[in-house]
Amino acid sequence: MKRTLGTCYYPEHWPEEIWEADARRMAETGLTWVRVGEFAWSRIEPCEGKLEFDWLDRAIETLGQAGLKVVLGTPTATPPRWVVEKHPDMIAVDADGKPRGFGSRRHYCFSHEGFRRESDRIVALVAGRYGKNPYIAAWQTDNEYGCHDTILSYSEAALKAFRLWLETRYGSIEALNRAWGNVFWSMEYASFDEIGLPNLTVTEPNPSHTLAFRRFSSDQVVGFNRRQVEIIRKVSDAPISHNYMGRFTDFDHFKVGDDLEIATWDSYPLGFLEDRVGADDAWQRAFARQGDPDFQAFHHDLYRAVGKGRWWVMEQQPGPVNWAPHNPAPLPGMMRLWAWEAYAHGAEAVCYFRWRQAPFAQEQMHAGMLRPDNADAPALLEARRVADELRQAPDVSAPRAPVALIFDYDADFAWTTQPHGAGLSYFQLVFETYKALRKLGLSVDILRGETRDFSGYKIVAAPGLIYMPQDLKKVLADADAKVVLGPRTAARNADMVIPVPLPPDMPGLDVTVSRVETMRPDMPMPLRGGGCFTGYREELEGAADTVFELEDGQPAILRSGHLTYVGGWCDEAALKRLYSELCRDAGIETMDLEGGVRCRDTDGFRIWTNYGAESADTPAGRMEAAGVLLERKREPVRSGI
Amino acid sequence: MKRTLGTCYYPEHWPEEIWEADARRMAETGLTWVRVGEFAWSRIEPCEGKLEFDWLDRAIETLGQAGLKVVLGTPTATPPRWVVEKHPDMIAVDADGKPRGFGSRRHYCFSHEGFRRESDRIVALVAGRYGKNPYIAAWQTDNEYGCHDTILSYSEAALKAFRLWLETRYGSIEALNRAWGNVFWSMEYASFDEIGLPNLTVTEPNPSHTLAFRRFSSDQVVGFNRRQVEIIRKVSDAPISHNYMGRFTDFDHFKVGDDLEIATWDSYPLGFLEDRVGADDAWQRAFARQGDPDFQAFHHDLYRAVGKGRWWVMEQQPGPVNWAPHNPAPLPGMMRLWAWEAYAHGAEAVCYFRWRQAPFAQEQMHAGMLRPDNADAPALLEARRVADELRQAPDVSAPRAPVALIFDYDADFAWTTQPHGAGLSYFQLVFETYKALRKLGLSVDILRGETRDFSGYKIVAAPGLIYMPQDLKKVLADADAKVVLGPRTAARNADMVIPVPLPPDMPGLDVTVSRVETMRPDMPMPLRGGGCFTGYREELEGAADTVFELEDGQPAILRSGHLTYVGGWCDEAALKRLYSELCRDAGIETMDLEGGVRCRDTDGFRIWTNYGAESADTPAGRMEAAGVLLERKREPVRSGI
Amino acid sequence: MKRTLGTCYYPEHWPEEIWEADARRMAETGLTWVRVGEFAWSRIEPCEGKLEFDWLDRAIETLGQAGLKVVLGTPTATPPRWVVEKHPDMIAVDADGKPRGFGSRRHYCFSHEGFRRESDRIVALVAGRYGKNPYIAAWQTDNEYGCHDTILSYSEAALKAFRLWLETRYGSIEALNRAWGNVFWSMEYASFDEIGLPNLTVTEPNPSHTLAFRRFSSDQVVGFNRRQVEIIRKVSDAPISHNYMGRFTDFDHFKVGDDLEIATWDSYPLGFLEDRVGADDAWQRAFARQGDPDFQAFHHDLYRAVGKGRWWVMEQQPGPVNWAPHNPAPLPGMMRLWAWEAYAHGAEAVCYFRWRQAPFAQEQMHAGMLRPDNADAPALLEARRVADELRQAPDVSAPRAPVALIFDYDADFAWTTQPHGAGLSYFQLVFETYKALRKLGLSVDILRGETRDFSGYKIVAAPGLIYMPQDLKKVLADADAKVVLGPRTAARNADMVIPVPLPPDMPGLDVTVSRVETMRPDMPMPLRGGGCFTGYREELEGAADTVFELEDGQPAILRSGHLTYVGGWCDEAALKRLYSELCRDAGIETMDLEGGVRCRDTDGFRIWTNYGAESADTPAGRMEAAGVLLERKREPVRSGI
Ligand SMILES: [Zn+2]
Ligand SMILES: [Zn+2]
Ligand SMILES: [Zn+2]
Repeated sequence: MKRTLGTCYYPEHWPEEIWEADARRMAETGLTWVRVGEFAWSRIEPCEGKLEFDWLDRAIETLGQAGLKVVLGTPTATPPRWVVEKHPDMIAVDADGKPRGFGSRRHYCFSHEGFRRESDRIVALVAGRYGKNPYIAAWQTDNEYGCHDTILSYSEAALKAFRLWLETRYGSIEALNRAWGNVFWSMEYASFDEIGLPNLTVTEPNPSHTLAFRRFSSDQVVGFNRRQVEIIRKVSDAPISHNYMGRFTDFDHFKVGDDLEIATWDSYPLGFLEDRVGADDAWQRAFARQGDPDFQAFHHDLYRAVGKGRWWVMEQQPGPVNWAPHNPAPLPGMMRLWAWEAYAHGAEAVCYFRWRQAPFAQEQMHAGMLRPDNADAPALLEARRVADELRQAPDVSAPRAPVALIFDYDADFAWTTQPHGAGLSYFQLVFETYKALRKLGLSVDILRGETRDFSGYKIVAAPGLIYMPQDLKKVLADADAKVVLGPRTAARNADMVIPVPLPPDMPGLDVTVSRVETMRPDMPMPLRGGGCFTGYREELEGAADTVFELEDGQPAILRSGHLTYVGGWCDEAALKRLYSELCRDAGIETMDLEGGVRCRDTDGFRIWTNYGAESADTPAGRMEAAGVLLERKREPVRSGI
Repeated sequence: MKRTLGTCYYPEHWPEEIWEADARRMAETGLTWVRVGEFAWSRIEPCEGKLEFDWLDRAIETLGQAGLKVVLGTPTATPPRWVVEKHPDMIAVDADGKPRGFGSRRHYCFSHEGFRRESDRIVALVAGRYGKNPYIAAWQTDNEYGCHDTILSYSEAALKAFRLWLETRYGSIEALNRAWGNVFWSMEYASFDEIGLPNLTVTEPNPSHTLAFRRFSSDQVVGFNRRQVEIIRKVSDAPISHNYMGRFTDFDHFKVGDDLEIATWDSYPLGFLEDRVGADDAWQRAFARQGDPDFQAFHHDLYRAVGKGRWWVMEQQPGPVNWAPHNPAPLPGMMRLWAWEAYAHGAEAVCYFRWRQAPFAQEQMHAGMLRPDNADAPALLEARRVADELRQAPDVSAPRAPVALIFDYDADFAWTTQPHGAGLSYFQLVFETYKALRKLGLSVDILRGETRDFSGYKIVAAPGLIYMPQDLKKVLADADAKVVLGPRTAARNADMVIPVPLPPDMPGLDVTVSRVETMRPDMPMPLRGGGCFTGYREELEGAADTVFELEDGQPAILRSGHLTYVGGWCDEAALKRLYSELCRDAGIETMDLEGGVRCRDTDGFRIWTNYGAESADTPAGRMEAAGVLLERKREPVRSGI
Repeated sequence: MKRTLGTCYYPEHWPEEIWEADARRMAETGLTWVRVGEFAWSRIEPCEGKLEFDWLDRAIETLGQAGLKVVLGTPTATPPRWVVEKHPDMIAVDADGKPRGFGSRRHYCFSHEGFRRESDRIVALVAGRYGKNPYIAAWQTDNEYGCHDTILSYSEAALKAFRLWLETRYGSIEALNRAWGNVFWSMEYASFDEIGLPNLTVTEPNPSHTLAFRRFSSDQVVGFNRRQVEIIRKVSDAPISHNYMGRFTDFDHFKVGDDLEIATWDSYPLGFLEDRVGADDAWQRAFARQGDPDFQAFHHDLYRAVGKGRWWVMEQQPGPVNWAPHNPAPLPGMMRLWAWEAYAHGAEAVCYFRWRQAPFAQEQMHAGMLRPDNADAPALLEARRVADELRQAPDVSAPRAPVALIFDYDADFAWTTQPHGAGLSYFQLVFETYKALRKLGLSVDILRGETRDFSGYKIVAAPGLIYMPQDLKKVLADADAKVVLGPRTAARNADMVIPVPLPPDMPGLDVTVSRVETMRPDMPMPLRGGGCFTGYREELEGAADTVFELEDGQPAILRSGHLTYVGGWCDEAALKRLYSELCRDAGIETMDLEGGVRCRDTDGFRIWTNYGAESADTPAGRMEAAGVLLERKREPVRSGI
């Protein structure tokens, strides 16, 4: 399959007279894909039952005639005002009990049956109209599930649905009381109807309660999405996708992905560095115009797994955005680099968001490929260069990596429920591990928590899996790969209760976590030989061999055979030591990449990117700032592609 | 007109027995003015319809008999409890939807018709009673409109009025949808009754929506005030004033001022430095007992414009206040300096707030001219010295300055709606420009955005005017003065939409802002030759001459003829370079004032103030800490006055 | 009386089969006391009227048979769900108006009569069942009144009760209006039914209003507790206690203590250092595993006073806790040290919370004396060592100290109502004074504000007593001790109004506070001779002798005879100077203790503790980290006990 480019287009924002010129210009730029329709409900159905598809028919026809393939979005992320007037209680409610009303987007509660029926209805109408349209080459359900913190809703609809969900899961209220330990503070319920949502309690609610609500809320998204998929499937053979986001963990993307053919995600490297990567000030300054050198790669690998191999960037940052605390312009070349990095990780398509900057409404400061005055914006010029390069570029490729890293949304729910120390986050733990592997020059496959076949991997890293089912323990205990566990591995049972025997209780590994402590971030605990534990640390007992120890001689990392247990939160230096030793033992070659230089292996090629603002020397030669380099395995091909 | 002094007095707070002694002591201190009545509603009308004017009759008589002129306030800032019991829904509602109830002051929503009628009624009663009273020499409407964040109310009354306001402005809902770009996220309305207030939305509302609500809220204040004015005018010839505040931009003061004869403001230099100037820690320490050396001057110039030349300080800080995070005592001499600085800017009167410190209620820690035990407080002693000095001082004077600086509340509404980068503020932008001009020794006139006649000015600075009507563009393009535009000049149309052609689209100036970015404050962008852009920066195209450029060679400040466009947020050094060069070209002499020394020109005199905590050498000679010096133009008159 | 140990046990959390082994193990460890029952309402009364006491009968029998003495808690801190269903409006309401619902604990409003009746009922049932049980050796009412910020409730029930409380206190609404100065902003009420709660006002409410609400809220706790005490007293002769908390000042503990025989408190040194001591980062790092060296001692002395001499630690931190921002493990030895420090201050008992770590619910990360898997946790081993040491240790002892320090909850209410400067706190002021005295090696008695007999003390420190009744002034003026007053002494009358003559208006001390200022914390005001005032400072007049003066020569600390007035907030160095001079004059020997070394005198012994993480030299010899040393007065007894 060829690597492709695309964009997001809103014909409803522009006079019909310019659609054809727009479409032609897209094609000339070398774009293959154009996404439309995902916010257009008020134009498709301006009031209840009045359908106006003609304009969309013509828009799709115009785009298709220009040679573009259309991705059609269901418009459920923006229910029009009349839908809200009809169902006033469809509005989600925040943790403070405040309604989250009309006036922007995503103003619906996933649990509201009335809105779910409206969603079914509009999806059926759109799918029915375009299911056989030859230009519709893919679908997108809704848009960015969860954006603006919209997964957890504390509405009456959610309460009702949560009680049912609990009844299905636990069967009897006695079973729930027992499983959650509700006796603790006389929190026992006499019936499911007595259970509330875990907000507005005097102090923190029972973590079992909170975790159950997070799982329920995730399941509501999965169910909502599945209804759309089932409706579309009946009438269309085109693949169905959804566009996920960066560092977003409020629902289980793998479970949503199970119902879809393609995973896509919306990649805004500069916005992300500003508002969610969590880097220190010096790092933020150094990469302010380029983005964090590992953050996008991590999500590429994550969504490749969510998409079961098929994935896109559906929205690629095209210039300054409007929503971060600060919104710098990208360093020239970065919009090309980001595309190539996506291809390096196996992307089938990279679509720039959006075609022309909208002069109005919430995103008027969000750049496009065209300026509001129709002039080429830098994104268009860089996209054109990528299109040229793609003509003779190798096909989509994502060969198995030597190292696997498990990412499990349920573990994130549990850590979020109970971080134990301020600022500790499962996502951060996994991401720092990923970063360490990348800086060793390694390509990584991210695997979901439900994975049971690890054959082919030399190393499997599974940090922070706070709940680990017995069958996963067994598979890892029997694996050929070197397996890295801890911290917090198997520290809770399925209901967020500490198991006895104490964790990790792993076959083949005589390690017991006897006590857990969290520390101020400014009190690192040095390891003998370099590196530190920071923030979180476990006291370990057991006969396993000590691999690393703390400076006071207490065991820090233990090992039996292929199983390694890490009893704390490793800093960068500790991770580097740990994984470079493991790689050496596993016969994996490593490098020592500094600054913004990174690489990834595809079939036949190693693709290098330089996120640095300065040129840099790399194992494959000198690279310019924002440079991209395809190195044919064992021999460089060409510089700057 | 002679410069005068005054105070604020609350006869209702004290036993009637001491009124006469108080009045005599005021007169002996050299005060001319005494403001009364603005919080006394519960004593004038203790319950509905029961009027008790006798005590106020006697108080005014006592003050008048002592030779004082009375400023009488309408008491609408503090509706008594019974008014709220009668109109429970008159209470304003905050952005979270919480009521802002009785128990302090300003607990009314400007849009509530029931309360508006109560306001009409009590104003008519007070004005009727005292309209012809010979001692009433001026009126004050209400008190500090907007204090405690009370302009924006999200009540039902506001919602109803907002819908009407929109209907009047846009005529049809289709026009509104079009003007706002509501198609963007299917936010289109079918009628004005569907429009909500722009709070409690899932993510930010449409900026057109927010801006409209800010304009509406400002208009509600203007309308509320106008009703009071119309009622008073019917029965009194005395001038009418209102006391504004510092760094307060939630309503258009110029529009309120259009209905009044005099603008007054409440000047608390130490409290302001603590809670709103926004200076860094070192500056705050250096001026903790003196206040920022430019903040008061800026507001003096601003309110001179609001008052169309006639303005007072209605409340002058008399010692420590009660409301700032920290409340230091002024450096000895500052209460005199602040008065003289007001006179330097054309004040007719300076009134100290308040006569005697109240031992009870919210402001019990707010100093007065007298201590609670009736002893002289430092403010009284300094006021007496000013009174002595005033006897032989020149009259009120505010000659036209060489430099004009535009301040436009509507621009502030727009910047607040969409700062684009964290912490960017229109007020700050204008204030920093003002500071730079002051440090060059310049006297400045502040002009409103509606100004169309700039004749007589050598320089007109108009930073940040995000919406600029065509006729203003034309006037500035044709002006004789050197005009400084940017950043963000004309970046939006009247409905907060980006115009095409792109901004500034200024006749006679070939500059186009092709892209905008905001940066972390710790990433300044150096200019060749000194100074930096910080936080905000525009990419500029066009044939105009480059005046300043960034170190990477990109244009930063462009010029054609008398029009200069500044494509970023200048730091102090950049502003100094820019304006000293402009002054040189315009034939304006400049100085280089450091620390806390500043000056201002009046007819015949240059008045110097030293805000520093140490004595300092100035072009007019050595000045003590907190010193004041009147220099006769070209020759010093006397030191220390 | 022998010093004793104990623990907190939840038989309802564990299978009945293990109760007997648990009880035996407690006894073998050397524990005397076991607290039970305080969260067990849902097991005692699973639904309305259905009582299940059998299990508790058996649990108490089992514990008693093992030789343990039982402290039985009333279960009112955790009303079961059915109680809330029956009384939905019993839920407290926070200052934002949000309900504080079921799902954790303390979800009741102290003012709700319906819940008060439920409390009476369940207490009567429990007391009736166990009042004569020979194993019940003490009672505990409720649990940690006020925990999770639960004293102030803004509910309808509280409003109703507050109005009654005000009517009782003031008699007539005119008296209240006058006392509060409600005329100030037309805040006058026509009847008590018009008074609201002091939340949700536009700006701060009248401080008299806020202070009254704080006093009312405190009285509600006193009344609630008294009802429980009266019910228990009818049927039991065992002493009654309540377990207070650290740095908790929302109700008057002395008034609650008046109704009880024993005061206990819950001491979590590491959690407290993390979340409430307020130390700087370096101090927090230095003592992260040991706790602040003075914070526990302060509360020991405080609660000894609250308990009129009889006091316990009811919950002693046994390892990492679950609730602080970071939760480190204690340095080995600290769980022993904390116990010995309690004994040094006169504790009768120290009970570790809790016996076995609960694997479920909110406190699953809270260590116990046993791990969840039943293995000994470090706390058990250290407790066993303490038990061994206690066998030959001296008896409970708390001789009168040479120095008295007044702590008054009502003063804290007033400071909280009106700190005047950001961050100023009465608790902090008193605690810093305490710290200074401790570092001079002094033993201190804390006395309540109602104390009128100071005989036997050489120094009485009374900082910050913002309201001082006339009789206290007189007693202090006549005292034999050196008395230290200020800052803010007698600065308000009983209704939070500034008195005239101005404060302190102290017989025998010619000092008047003429003006008050608060300063940024980074602007210390140096004193001649060393030390500074920081944050807060008064200008002083009067003929008293200047003891300390500011560097600019203004008086800072004045004295007449035995009365010293401190006109500002002293830093550590100033306090050290002031009190070491006073001690010298009073003939009290002092030391100069640095780091974490502290001592306290009991009958015959000086008990030393080293909170440091390193060994240290002390006047009594070298001490290990976490070391304890009993020095026989004038001669050391044994090191390390
Ligand atoms: Zn998006
Ligand atoms: Zn004021
Ligand atoms: Zn507790």
